[in-house]
Amino acid sequence: VNSEDRFVAGLRALLPGGRPVLVGPGDDAAVLERAPGLLVATTDMVVEGVDFLPAEDPERLGRRAAAVNLSDLAAMGAEPEALLLAIGFRRERGPDYPLAITRGAAARGGEFGARLVGGDLSDAPLTIVTIALWGRPVGRPLTRSGAKPGDAVYLSGRPGEAAAGLVLARRLAAFAEQGAGPTPRFPGLTVHDEKELLAAYRDPEPRIALGAALSRDELATACIDVSDGVGVDAGRLAGASGVRLVLERHRLPVTPALRSFGELESKDPLDLLLSGGDDYELLFTAPSGGSERVEAAGAALGIRLSRVGRVEAGSGAVLEEAGGIRDIAALGYDHFRRAS
Amino acid sequence: VNSEDRFVAGLRALLPGGRPVLVGPGDDAAVLERAPGLLVATTDMVVEGVDFLPAEDPERLGRRAAAVNLSDLAAMGAEPEALLLAIGFRRERGPDYPLAITRGAAARGGEFGARLVGGDLSDAPLTIVTIALWGRPVGRPLTRSGAKPGDAVYLSGRPGEAAAGLVLARRLAAFAEQGAGPTPRFPGLTVHDEKELLAAYRDPEPRIALGAALSRDELATACIDVSDGVGVDAGRLAGASGVRLVLERHRLPVTPALRSFGELESKDPLDLLLSGGDDYELLFTAPSGGSERVEAAGAALGIRLSRVGRVEAGSGAVLEEAGGIRDIAALGYDHFRRAS
Repeated sequence: VNSEDRFVAGLRALLPGGRPVLVGPGDDAAVLERAPGLLVATTDMVVEGVDFLPAEDPERLGRRAAAVNLSDLAAMGAEPEALLLAIGFRRERGPDYPLAITRGAAARGGEFGARLVGGDLSDAPLTIVTIALWGRPVGRPLTRSGAKPGDAVYLSGRPGEAAAGLVLARRLAAFAEQGAGPTPRFPGLTVHDEKELLAAYRDPEPRIALGAALSRDELATACIDVSDGVGVDAGRLAGASGVRLVLERHRLPVTPALRSFGELESKDPLDLLLSGGDDYELLFTAPSGGSERVEAAGAALGIRLSRVGRVEAGSGAVLEEAGGIRDIAALGYDHFRRAS
Repeated sequence: VNSEDRFVAGLRALLPGGRPVLVGPGDDAAVLERAPGLLVATTDMVVEGVDFLPAEDPERLGRRAAAVNLSDLAAMGAEPEALLLAIGFRRERGPDYPLAITRGAAARGGEFGARLVGGDLSDAPLTIVTIALWGRPVGRPLTRSGAKPGDAVYLSGRPGEAAAGLVLARRLAAFAEQGAGPTPRFPGLTVHDEKELLAAYRDPEPRIALGAALSRDELATACIDVSDGVGVDAGRLAGASGVRLVLERHRLPVTPALRSFGELESKDPLDLLLSGGDDYELLFTAPSGGSERVEAAGAALGIRLSRVGRVEAGSGAVLEEAGGIRDIAALGYDHFRRAS
């Protein structure tokens, strides 16, 4: 038996059959039933050495690749339905490696209602995981383009912690290589803070329920998920809406863990938040009179929502601080520059 | 402006807007209208140095990546609707490189009714293109699992020519590196044959119209697209259907170009056909009494259809030749072994 066919057999054992999936993995394409209505679709590719460390655990990698895509649907206010998974990897990794990635992606998708319906394996000199995910909007799709002057700007969760977690994961990997044992600790950080920062990077939480609430209850005027840093993504939302976003320094949520990490690294924690990336939090705008409803929605879901600024006429994204304002739209992470 | 945003601007200029696409490239996800009914979905990843040569023209690469996916929908008897495109590439290739891939994929998809609705760019140390494509079945979806003892086995087009074209492309690339000029010729082959073989590899023709006819008119009992060689794919169809496929050597279509190439290379052209791969022809089964209808469908579409064998009770795929029979199900291309 061909090894790709063995993989398909493993996949079938892993995935539950039955409706709405009429034809699952192992045929030329998947066939599934779908109720009428709008389809919201996205794809994201993650690459070894660029988006994750070579030593990344494959199941966690699959979870994370799924989360990155789920976050895009969250930002549209959509409910996930199904996903396709393509994996490129070195043959020496062995047949369990892509199965572990698949297990992670299928599990993470499943937590949000998305069924893994098909995939592809390819030989490659490094690991690449591409997921395509689709679903349906629960209300009017949330785009990036509806923000209006006078709106308030909100940010969910703990942005910046993922960027700190990535620095931390790299340091710990270097310690481990230097022979510090299999699970070295980062000096000066509490176990709790270390865990929180690492988890933010390794296993980000897609804000599906929040996006759905913002769309269903028509709370937000525009929304984007923060994948490349709050700065550049604020600039993108501003550009799409034809407005200016002003973030107020004292309102930006800096968690105790992020603050501790910044002190140990002699870094302004706000730089991690503004230019870090990989957070997968939602940045959204809402009419300034609606803040009680927004706060109630966050409280109902147990998600911290911070009102971080305001929308003005104009263009670009700036940070307002004691010394004046500075441009933050060019701060973020540029995919073309990542490896350099 | 961030370079990914510049790419999105280029993409928008390239892609026509309007229904059924409500939100196209440049937001967190695409939003499109879709009539009710079954959804047929597939994904395929192609990797530099594994699935295509590093010097491959980017627009042609985009066309080919689209064709590989379109072929999967063809094998299900589905009409393409939309596609998502993820590209990983070295930054040194410059911003026009992913745009050219995109242009090729969008054009090739468009020829078959599939709109490019979104995508992702990633930095990577080599080029990787992953496409996810979906559409709707025109009739009952053609699976691999409906073949019955007594059925006849058919093959479309000119299988084996793509494998010959790949060998040829590699030789020509090596000649060019040795200073034989930018467009060296392969000695002994006519210009016509060389063109035909190279085109079979570089720009395969997805058999969308044939798959649709087989499904709509209920002509086929099972179908697979030949991506990894007729041998292994015959074995896959046999395995999914729980039958044995017997291909008869004298019935297999060997074109004059494939025969000439085999002679020049001292290779049995049937080996290229059975174990070559990358053909994207359809291998299908049909009731043996229906051969006139099948042939009429091929004639109406201008596609050569060869009746190449029969379905028997049992398992596996074999070639029947003067000296007896031989197993061909293990001949084909194994993705896990490609680079070794």
